[in-house]
Amino acid sequence: MLSEISAALDAQTDFAADVFDRLRSVSEDVRGVTRASYGDGEQAAHSLMSEIARELGLEVRQDAAVNTYMTWAGQDRSAPIRMVGSHLDSVPQGGNYDGAAGVVSGLVAIRALQTLGYKPNCDISVMGVRAEESCWFGVSYIGSRSALGVLPEGSLETAKRMDNGVSLAQHIVNCGGDPDKLLNAPPYLDAKRIEAFLEPHIEQGPELVEASYPVGIVTGIRGNRRFPDARVFGEYAHCGGAPRRVRRDAVVAATEFVQAMDMLWDQADACGDDFACTIGKFQTNPERHAMTVISGEVSFTLDMRSVDAEVLSRLEGQIPKISSDIAARRGVRIDLGPITRAAPGIMDLGLIKTYREAASSMGVRAMDIPSGASHDSAAFADAGIPTAMLFIRNENGSHNPDEAMEISDFIEATKLLTAALSKR
Amino acid sequence: MLSEISAALDAQTDFAADVFDRLRSVSEDVRGVTRASYGDGEQAAHSLMSEIARELGLEVRQDAAVNTYMTWAGQDRSAPIRMVGSHLDSVPQGGNYDGAAGVVSGLVAIRALQTLGYKPNCDISVMGVRAEESCWFGVSYIGSRSALGVLPEGSLETAKRMDNGVSLAQHIVNCGGDPDKLLNAPPYLDAKRIEAFLEPHIEQGPELVEASYPVGIVTGIRGNRRFPDARVFGEYAHCGGAPRRVRRDAVVAATEFVQAMDMLWDQADACGDDFACTIGKFQTNPERHAMTVISGEVSFTLDMRSVDAEVLSRLEGQIPKISSDIAARRGVRIDLGPITRAAPGIMDLGLIKTYREAASSMGVRAMDIPSGASHDSAAFADAGIPTAMLFIRNENGSHNPDEAMEISDFIEATKLLTAALSKR
Repeated sequence: MLSEISAALDAQTDFAADVFDRLRSVSEDVRGVTRASYGDGEQAAHSLMSEIARELGLEVRQDAAVNTYMTWAGQDRSAPIRMVGSHLDSVPQGGNYDGAAGVVSGLVAIRALQTLGYKPNCDISVMGVRAEESCWFGVSYIGSRSALGVLPEGSLETAKRMDNGVSLAQHIVNCGGDPDKLLNAPPYLDAKRIEAFLEPHIEQGPELVEASYPVGIVTGIRGNRRFPDARVFGEYAHCGGAPRRVRRDAVVAATEFVQAMDMLWDQADACGDDFACTIGKFQTNPERHAMTVISGEVSFTLDMRSVDAEVLSRLEGQIPKISSDIAARRGVRIDLGPITRAAPGIMDLGLIKTYREAASSMGVRAMDIPSGASHDSAAFADAGIPTAMLFIRNENGSHNPDEAMEISDFIEATKLLTAALSKR
Repeated sequence: MLSEISAALDAQTDFAADVFDRLRSVSEDVRGVTRASYGDGEQAAHSLMSEIARELGLEVRQDAAVNTYMTWAGQDRSAPIRMVGSHLDSVPQGGNYDGAAGVVSGLVAIRALQTLGYKPNCDISVMGVRAEESCWFGVSYIGSRSALGVLPEGSLETAKRMDNGVSLAQHIVNCGGDPDKLLNAPPYLDAKRIEAFLEPHIEQGPELVEASYPVGIVTGIRGNRRFPDARVFGEYAHCGGAPRRVRRDAVVAATEFVQAMDMLWDQADACGDDFACTIGKFQTNPERHAMTVISGEVSFTLDMRSVDAEVLSRLEGQIPKISSDIAARRGVRIDLGPITRAAPGIMDLGLIKTYREAASSMGVRAMDIPSGASHDSAAFADAGIPTAMLFIRNENGSHNPDEAMEISDFIEATKLLTAALSKR
């Protein structure tokens, strides 16, 4: 069976390339593609995927958040379903593959199985997820969390799309959805009825390119600890008048904090712990700062990630002492502000084993890889659904028009997906 | 003579307090005082000082930049003159003493000498300087540099006052000055005709308060090296996708640079070198930064100061290697941008000796102190004029309404000034 699947997928190469071309043409921007969450490009992508699904004889439905479900009916329709899914939105002027590759992979897998005369036992459903990218509404996983009934309270009204200021609820209405139902009806997806959630996605880093592997089997999705609004308060003072011993310089203190985080990372690396740490924003107060004034205020963000929950907890526990030591030494007050925590996304070991065995049997070159970035899969894993991700080799990073995924690598990943979907 | 001077100054205490009260009343703001450069408060201060000078029988003149000269005619009017001066403008909602104390000190010294029946050999001229504070036009020492003929080229038209956008030239016209004359006539002051320039000024730091000295004899004015527009260029990347080894994180690199500057300061301290270093502005690009994006750009300012020209040159020489080491280690490009250099203001050793001897004879408790901040005196020293500064004890720093100078400390400093003005 696996060798037949492999050959059947190779035969889908032209079809897959054509689908990606059509997808690009319906969402092209001046540079790259733009498929804004609940915007025109995303709508066009959902329409195109639905049209292709109907050609394959799949049932097409949408839920109240306008996620699209393209379902190949199984022989036992009451059996727990196997899902494939990823998002169809993109960042502004992004690439054609981030997100969409997972949806196309699901449709191509079904098409290949159909050519083999395969009849699924249970429903196989490909989900086109809405609004995964946090750049549009400041909230991530809107589609998948809506489907699972765990959208953060209040988001429908308070989240506004950055480019037009219109609320999430209004956007959902405009796309044919029903925000009231999201609030008051049971969630569309019932975790207990989902046997597995499988998400192929292009890799956003360079690991597969550098290691020369077409496919990665994701071992876990990093969880995080985030401080979105950390502040250091010192004292504004004339830089000529204040001698060093009385200075309370927020810049010197905050930069020391950043360097301390970098040293924590060194230590984590030395222990072999998975860790990443980013200070994306860092600024003195533009209304008061000046070249000759000691800065009394710095604001910054801190994002710490690890696939290992224990590592995250340990590092979070070290922050208060690092912070208070610097505050004491530099005569400042450090207020790290609210912390948000996201647990690592645990990948299902049974599914990982299925992928590994399929790779070995079919000669697909696949390596283990952690996911540094977050994905819809984290929401599914968090809901207790057995979840697994595949990464597809991709040059030049994601979230830009220069994403470069080879169709042959996409086919290799889809071979593993097909094996998992059709496993008896 | 010195003991008579001391007693004569003590007798001026009420007069001095009254002048400061009147000065506050003509320039009061909601909080503190506001004497904008070439604005109403500064005009009122010049009028008030001129009125008091006329009551003392002094000649009052203004130059093309509307600086005010209040001159007590000497017996030999062709002899090189002794000048006292400081600025009459203030920062917005500043204190009543920063700058003005020097002008009042000159008038009080003359009044005391008059009570003693003293007849000066040469002219003694008190200069009320315009527009010293750089917060108004972004240019410092406008008044003193105009008088000396060294105002930076183009400033008259290009410098606009921050609060109203009107040019410096127009402001000078509005106050009765003549910008054309500033451009085309010889400077009002001829350095060769000035025997000494003496500037009393409140201390802007806490040194005298902490050491319990009413008066400081300034040993030198710090020069500086400034990088007003330094930048670090890395690469924007998704913080989940980019593994550490490929990161080119501008924040991590720029914060390491700040910490390296702080270590340079440690080294300077260990060598006993005078040094101060300030990074007043530091920011990621607000249009592109985000919590989950590795920052590709940081801009910052760097101000390094020392009274020692050799220290400044040595530290400036160390910057390129520090910068290139960090750039190589962090995979970024560091562009420090243009550098500006100001030589330290050399105080005249003869005048310092005069002050020290007078302090010793009159029992005025005075300590040596470097000036961390810049002052009009730096422009006079730079023109080759023998220059000296006195600092007057002041609590709570300057440039704020909480400046707290005691009149008794002001009188102590004015005793030293009077001794120097009347020295045969």
